[in-house]
Amino acid sequence: MSTLALAFDLGGTELRGALVERSGEVIARVSEPTMAGAGSKAVIRQIIALAERLLNEHPQAKVIGLGACAPGPLDPKAGIVIAPPTLAGWHNVPLMDILSRQFGLPVRLENDGNAAALGEWRFGAGRRTDSLVFVTVSTGIGGGVVADGRLYHGRRGLAAEIGHMTITGEGDRCFCGNIGCFEAVASGTALGRRATQLTAPGDGSLLRCLSKGGDVSARHVVEAARAGDVTAHELVEAEARWLGIGFTNLLHLYSPDLIVMGGGLAKGFDLLAPGIRATVEERAMPAYREVPIVPAELGDRAGLVGAASLILWEGEPRTAPAPLT
Amino acid sequence: MSTLALAFDLGGTELRGALVERSGEVIARVSEPTMAGAGSKAVIRQIIALAERLLNEHPQAKVIGLGACAPGPLDPKAGIVIAPPTLAGWHNVPLMDILSRQFGLPVRLENDGNAAALGEWRFGAGRRTDSLVFVTVSTGIGGGVVADGRLYHGRRGLAAEIGHMTITGEGDRCFCGNIGCFEAVASGTALGRRATQLTAPGDGSLLRCLSKGGDVSARHVVEAARAGDVTAHELVEAEARWLGIGFTNLLHLYSPDLIVMGGGLAKGFDLLAPGIRATVEERAMPAYREVPIVPAELGDRAGLVGAASLILWEGEPRTAPAPLT
Repeated sequence: MSTLALAFDLGGTELRGALVERSGEVIARVSEPTMAGAGSKAVIRQIIALAERLLNEHPQAKVIGLGACAPGPLDPKAGIVIAPPTLAGWHNVPLMDILSRQFGLPVRLENDGNAAALGEWRFGAGRRTDSLVFVTVSTGIGGGVVADGRLYHGRRGLAAEIGHMTITGEGDRCFCGNIGCFEAVASGTALGRRATQLTAPGDGSLLRCLSKGGDVSARHVVEAARAGDVTAHELVEAEARWLGIGFTNLLHLYSPDLIVMGGGLAKGFDLLAPGIRATVEERAMPAYREVPIVPAELGDRAGLVGAASLILWEGEPRTAPAPLT
Repeated sequence: MSTLALAFDLGGTELRGALVERSGEVIARVSEPTMAGAGSKAVIRQIIALAERLLNEHPQAKVIGLGACAPGPLDPKAGIVIAPPTLAGWHNVPLMDILSRQFGLPVRLENDGNAAALGEWRFGAGRRTDSLVFVTVSTGIGGGVVADGRLYHGRRGLAAEIGHMTITGEGDRCFCGNIGCFEAVASGTALGRRATQLTAPGDGSLLRCLSKGGDVSARHVVEAARAGDVTAHELVEAEARWLGIGFTNLLHLYSPDLIVMGGGLAKGFDLLAPGIRATVEERAMPAYREVPIVPAELGDRAGLVGAASLILWEGEPRTAPAPLT
């Protein structure tokens, strides 16, 4: 068996663990609901228990380290989870040191957007590019940037807070307090909210039929648009326009070779793509228009394999080479 | 005499040349109006003539190469000026090769925003930082980014097209065709236009007095605000708010250690700073709020010394060391 890393993706809802090869191949996976309200010690015990399960089930595994990702803000150099809004009681937790002492292994930590960007860059849609922007569009909007062949960190690893880029003066207030955040107008949550506002329980609309009368979600909008529903189609068009405005900013600011869109809404990528593309062609300066915008390839294992690669890939090569096997 | 570089800053209005030391010291400067309407051959002849003047006046100079900057879009790797809007008849001009053949010296080319960012990083306000965003606010808005100890290029060197980041849905149409570009609402031109719209020739206002009845410029607004004019003060406040919204985006997206503001409007930096700071504190997420925003230190020689450093500084050190003398 080749050299492996333990990988963890610590989310506010789900805690995922895996054994990952240098090629990005996932050998084994485990997951359970994160005890997000129980504080850091309880969650760290969950990580340790899952790790022991993986190691016990694969006693022959040659594990050389542990790569983990967690929600930001997070300092990847110091290995500290600063204060993620989705994890109660986590304040400046030195997760890297704690896990390193526990396992006696090298540990690397990265925020989840950056880890997923790294995963898609090294093993997914961004292979063979030098610069890419990964955008995850789901409950919120997050992401990560590979700049000139390296993960872009910036001060305290806080670069690429893409969701809180102001792109307009309209729309509902973002949870961060501002009006006009990319996330506030273009996330799956925003799309669901617009669909909910446009319809009413019992109005006979396909959207409310799919939502069983409850609040409409982005998933229902995509589903109804696929079924040819006109209202859903218009909602998808408006969503694509907001995404196109935000993506055009990302092109102008980061000039990537590629934009990779992940997250729940990427399941509707085929429906959104024409509207995104039309908006980019209308708004981007000529030199940026031809940059491809593609769906993510790795789904929910992007963060896991990206985190694993922090351990398994020595340094960060200028361009991603073909992974060794 | 120490090792020197020839440096050129090719602007749409002025062509500047210099001899620069590794320390960033400018030994000699020349300049003349750019023959911007006469095509690339005429301007290249100007560069050659200015270079010969500098070399003839300093026959003992040990010149080891030529660093130049020019308006984007520009491909720094290929050394090609692509199609700058302010230079007529320049289309994919291989300026690096032309000058290299002419002088028999290594030549490096960079776009003017990037070169100025490099200058401020290595010799000016950004010394000892690892990441910085340089923003020039004048007729338009441009800039450059140093990311994790390196100039950020992105695809074809086109990163940091800061002026064409959409930050709102309102305001006058940008020359690029969009509504809401940072440049369209926050440049010196936008400030002057707002002042012109608020006043009328012969209305007895200080602004029109300073402008002698003609269109009011950003310079007049700063001057009137310094004299205590209430209208000018309100215009400065509104300008600072737009700058603060844009700068907050730059903090969230690039997470620099420092934002450096240059360009003509930086002459009013002291007046703008409180409003910029208040907007950033209101809008930026907590982890980004303490990042300093400071005025540029090098004025119009930032591009020249930055371009020279492309020749005189081997590679791009991770943090800017104290310059050798």
